[in-house]
Amino acid sequence: MKVNGTPYRSIWYEAGEVRIIDQRWLPHDFRIATLKTRDDFATAIRDMWVRGAPLIGATAAYGVAEDMARDPSDANLDETWQVLNATRPTAINLKWALDRCRAYLKPLAPSDRAEAALRLAHEIADEDVEINRRIGVNGLDIIKEIAARKPAGEPVRLLTHCNAGWLATVDWGTATSPMYHAAEAGIPIHVWVDETRPRNQGALTAWELGSHGISHAYVTDNAGGHLMQHGLVDMVIVGTDRTTATGDVCNKIGTYLKALAAHDNGVPFYVALPSPTIDWTVRDGVKEIPIEDRPEREVTHIQGTAADGSISEVRVTPEGSPGGNPAFDVTPARLVTGLITELGVTEASAEGLAAMFPDKAA
Amino acid sequence: MKVNGTPYRSIWYEAGEVRIIDQRWLPHDFRIATLKTRDDFATAIRDMWVRGAPLIGATAAYGVAEDMARDPSDANLDETWQVLNATRPTAINLKWALDRCRAYLKPLAPSDRAEAALRLAHEIADEDVEINRRIGVNGLDIIKEIAARKPAGEPVRLLTHCNAGWLATVDWGTATSPMYHAAEAGIPIHVWVDETRPRNQGALTAWELGSHGISHAYVTDNAGGHLMQHGLVDMVIVGTDRTTATGDVCNKIGTYLKALAAHDNGVPFYVALPSPTIDWTVRDGVKEIPIEDRPEREVTHIQGTAADGSISEVRVTPEGSPGGNPAFDVTPARLVTGLITELGVTEASAEGLAAMFPDKAA
Repeated sequence: MKVNGTPYRSIWYEAGEVRIIDQRWLPHDFRIATLKTRDDFATAIRDMWVRGAPLIGATAAYGVAEDMARDPSDANLDETWQVLNATRPTAINLKWALDRCRAYLKPLAPSDRAEAALRLAHEIADEDVEINRRIGVNGLDIIKEIAARKPAGEPVRLLTHCNAGWLATVDWGTATSPMYHAAEAGIPIHVWVDETRPRNQGALTAWELGSHGISHAYVTDNAGGHLMQHGLVDMVIVGTDRTTATGDVCNKIGTYLKALAAHDNGVPFYVALPSPTIDWTVRDGVKEIPIEDRPEREVTHIQGTAADGSISEVRVTPEGSPGGNPAFDVTPARLVTGLITELGVTEASAEGLAAMFPDKAA
Repeated sequence: MKVNGTPYRSIWYEAGEVRIIDQRWLPHDFRIATLKTRDDFATAIRDMWVRGAPLIGATAAYGVAEDMARDPSDANLDETWQVLNATRPTAINLKWALDRCRAYLKPLAPSDRAEAALRLAHEIADEDVEINRRIGVNGLDIIKEIAARKPAGEPVRLLTHCNAGWLATVDWGTATSPMYHAAEAGIPIHVWVDETRPRNQGALTAWELGSHGISHAYVTDNAGGHLMQHGLVDMVIVGTDRTTATGDVCNKIGTYLKALAAHDNGVPFYVALPSPTIDWTVRDGVKEIPIEDRPEREVTHIQGTAADGSISEVRVTPEGSPGGNPAFDVTPARLVTGLITELGVTEASAEGLAAMFPDKAA
């Protein structure tokens, strides 16, 4: 999407190099980084220069491509798979992309691997853009239905958590794609953007929406229940890092609380997801999905723009108080109104998913 | 309670002056302020130098006392009531304390009012300490029951939201009083402290608990649902700014989300409250209680300790993104396991409250 009038993707290939938006500085500063070595790619994924399941997958694929240019041996292909797969334990897209790269490259002669790997990385990136575009078209239908039931001109009020925006994918975003499509279709919308502590990815969503001219307000993660109690939310739409074969949804910590509030107030709760984020091997999300514990400094310290314009960090807790930082939670399928995929909208259940993806379901 | 080994109350009278802990600087800096004029008291309440319903009530009472020393006329008594009552719209204790002061002082000769008002302010402060002590004793019984069902030595894990600690009262706190009593009784506990955005009052709770040597961890407001799903919370205990005659609980924004998660996971959800915070005139909390909308800067900016040790503020949102800031929400009585009052523990219902406070209920 556009930044200061210029169209960007979140990862791209230019002048023989892989470039990304270094998202650690957003929304305060727009910086572009070039990734060259395997360590660069591993660092970018692990330290969240790039984040979001689809973008992590595309970044890993480009990482394999760049490393094959250096050493296309079988041993290095396996080692690269290992190194990149170890960077983030929860994102299923990471393993999906790496498995796809390795399966595609293994049968090829080492001398052909570098070129083939780059072609595949481009393909994975382009596929993601197309998947997200289709998610947007499918989600738009739901927004249109809600808009049709409201007085003319009254905006459809959406609430979202975290940043499942174009910055978390290659383009369009998942949860935001229906929003961008609604804006393009001339349907008035207003988006409540959850702050999403501890990393405040809501600020990225606010930055995205503001850049695109979409009405929004940044609210604390605590506010959503109150807004729903008072009829100020027409629809919740979030992304996901991993969805189980039964429709349980693993997403940024706090998503579950919004799903409970939506359920308690009769607000539809939708999850936008590209089908590669479905983990067909898992049936009970709460019991089976390992949840990443991230550094406590993310909770105890906050980064922002200081009065003098510099980007700096402050500690919010008393010195010596420990912080806990589980990064994701699981929303049980029973709280999910529907899953918006590239193929259409389905019920969050084993039956719903199996009907939409018959070749994938067990 | 103690600060660096010295016992403090959150408001006290010393050398003919009213002193408070200026809580805007906690947990980063411990500063004491002296309040003299009516404007000082109004500012201290409105700008949250003091916060928490019981402490706001006591502060207002001392404010009346100080202003009666200046001008004990009927006109000024009414004006002081007006000025102080307008500082915070949601806290019922404020109006309760002011009504009590006016009703007590009005029949007296103006020349007797200053001394009487100060005596009454001391009485209100001491009553609060005794009420909170009793809440602690009553809440301790619940903690003891939970401890008795756990393997010996395993801590009872509590989760709390906001700061309903001694800093929010005159001493002991409401939600924290059972914790301090458990610690004194030698029952091992661990407290999950919700950050409580946007003002991060969890940092105050962490500061309190850390100062008292109670095991705790500071977690984001998003984390509680996940912790409960995984059996890591034995009991939620929060305070309240206003409880309706039917047991609906108005408390810091986000409390409702924790109540939903507790209900969904079978975790007992208790509210600790002094009976003056019950508003017997309100029956439907969600519909009837006005919710304060606070400045958006509280959401868009965060204060903390910078790397150089100074207290400074950073902006976390992109420039130009608006913020929404409803400060409280209402938890319906159906989600509340019980109300811990100074008289005992009762069901959160009109019947439960009426049985415990027969003279107050309609």
